[in-house]
Amino acid sequence: MTTRDKTNSFSVGNLTYGGNSHIYIQSMCNTPTKDVKATVSQILKLEKYGCEIIRVAVLDQKDASCLAQIKKQIHIPLVADIHFDPNLALIAIEQGIDKLRLNPGNITDPVKIKEIVLKCKEKKIPIRIGVNAGSLPKDISAPTAEHMIEAAKRHIRILEELQFHDISLSLKASNIDLTIQAYKLAANTFSYPLHIGITEAGTMLKGAIKSGIGISRILEMGIGNTIRVSLTDDPVYEVIAAKEILKNLHLMSEETTFTSCPTCGRTQYDMIPIAKEIESYLDTVHKKIHVAVMGCAVNGPGEAKEADLGVAGGKGEALLFKKGVVVGKIKAEEIIPVLKKEIDEF
Amino acid sequence: MTTRDKTNSFSVGNLTYGGNSHIYIQSMCNTPTKDVKATVSQILKLEKYGCEIIRVAVLDQKDASCLAQIKKQIHIPLVADIHFDPNLALIAIEQGIDKLRLNPGNITDPVKIKEIVLKCKEKKIPIRIGVNAGSLPKDISAPTAEHMIEAAKRHIRILEELQFHDISLSLKASNIDLTIQAYKLAANTFSYPLHIGITEAGTMLKGAIKSGIGISRILEMGIGNTIRVSLTDDPVYEVIAAKEILKNLHLMSEETTFTSCPTCGRTQYDMIPIAKEIESYLDTVHKKIHVAVMGCAVNGPGEAKEADLGVAGGKGEALLFKKGVVVGKIKAEEIIPVLKKEIDEF
Repeated sequence: MTTRDKTNSFSVGNLTYGGNSHIYIQSMCNTPTKDVKATVSQILKLEKYGCEIIRVAVLDQKDASCLAQIKKQIHIPLVADIHFDPNLALIAIEQGIDKLRLNPGNITDPVKIKEIVLKCKEKKIPIRIGVNAGSLPKDISAPTAEHMIEAAKRHIRILEELQFHDISLSLKASNIDLTIQAYKLAANTFSYPLHIGITEAGTMLKGAIKSGIGISRILEMGIGNTIRVSLTDDPVYEVIAAKEILKNLHLMSEETTFTSCPTCGRTQYDMIPIAKEIESYLDTVHKKIHVAVMGCAVNGPGEAKEADLGVAGGKGEALLFKKGVVVGKIKAEEIIPVLKKEIDEF
Repeated sequence: MTTRDKTNSFSVGNLTYGGNSHIYIQSMCNTPTKDVKATVSQILKLEKYGCEIIRVAVLDQKDASCLAQIKKQIHIPLVADIHFDPNLALIAIEQGIDKLRLNPGNITDPVKIKEIVLKCKEKKIPIRIGVNAGSLPKDISAPTAEHMIEAAKRHIRILEELQFHDISLSLKASNIDLTIQAYKLAANTFSYPLHIGITEAGTMLKGAIKSGIGISRILEMGIGNTIRVSLTDDPVYEVIAAKEILKNLHLMSEETTFTSCPTCGRTQYDMIPIAKEIESYLDTVHKKIHVAVMGCAVNGPGEAKEADLGVAGGKGEALLFKKGVVVGKIKAEEIIPVLKKEIDEF
């Protein structure tokens, strides 16, 4: 039993979060929330790639009043990200959000805080507190792990005093060493589930390296109930990157595997585009399946013994095989649709 | 002192490799070696981004006979990657390469092996043995760490029997767990420097995640004298990814740091393209420098106290500061050239 499994557990929409639930993949929209069409379209795409919880920024009343409309059209829990303005939180709660990301210590009016917390309690809406090393309270501004925990305690105390315990916590820094120290200390200090991420990780390549190293180290310590990879790019890449981290650490149950040979002189069909398309299609498939796309019938079925499903190309056609056994012959142009259909039906 | 520092050390061209030398970044050209112009142009670009050792595939006599021409036009050690054909190795050695990547156990003619090894010894050309989990000898084909070490021993024995010891070794697998186990066992078994990498890591995003997790775990154990990130993409990304891994583990001495604010309502100039261009320019700079590009004069100089060099934009112009002190005012359109000049002169 890891630290992860020993955390509190509660509902986020239709999900059970924390405790021995699996590690959820989440992302954040980069569309204006008030542009409902663009936001819903982005969320539906993210769902397809395996995003399990989605967060949107609520900057003003217009954003807040669009949340119900968005929620109606999507299938995963919706989190409203709110800073400073308690009225936006109250509107968001009325709109039916599934979770609130809000730092109670940043709201100066105690009456408003109480109102928000009591409403969240009544509607069973959990709150995530997000401590960021770059914006600690003025009196403890030096960004150390201890100070990040102290900042978290101040926010948590406000909620606990109102007997509110459905709390999730994040402690992000752009420096991976500091982030790791902070989460380690948090796991020893609190029993609340932890949201893991490296903030301002950067553009796709550098952000993937930084998040890959940092998030994997934290998860390997048995810490973390949900992860978000932050990339300065399309959030779909955040979801693909998060899946890749979980897959490499064997922390994902529904794991697709894709094998393809590097092609050689024996390959007699245009294999690479087919391999790429099938690999990318598997990003949107959420089941345990191993698919192989091989260049030729010599090594194809043999090398793909472990695969559930595969093709081994010949001249203008390919052998279709299941569990290493040839089950039929298909034309080259039918490989993609046939494989997709077989994957869907698996 | 880590395992890394205790390995043997020898020269690769003008570099000292192994022992307590730093960890070298290497890559491999994806141009046809016989296309000298394209290959040299790719190597010069890779050098600019920080590649320290470059490998080219030698598939036939035409490739082999181009190596001297390539070597003449580049500034980093050139490694010839040769499989099976001993004659290509002999030509490559005559052409003046700095290192050979060749598995002696795959060459069936013992006379030829002896000739290659004696020539390498005479010309002080080291040999890298590359064991790949996917292509182990038939009698030990199950891909376990122990079998990979056994395969390495067979190749090494041939060289040692000829009193050849300038050996580098790699043990790659596409599975990160197996790769880590193999390198751990190798570090305990051999005193030869180790070349680290995850093979067939995949496309840019997934490959970066996989390599970031796998290579960083090996380096953190104190193992590894050179790294190559394998990506199915432009090798420049391999070099950027390798640098990012070393930077995050504090294993690079000449480390550039870049800070930029996320921009806000106070930003009165088109900051993001400037930030991106300067960040990308720093990828080609090899010195310890911290540069900041900030949106406004309110937080700019303050937040960038730690920076060696920076700008804080105003309306159509920016303050230039060094070590947090304002030293001048520049027009918006001059920010990029002025910063580049200051970085060059730093």
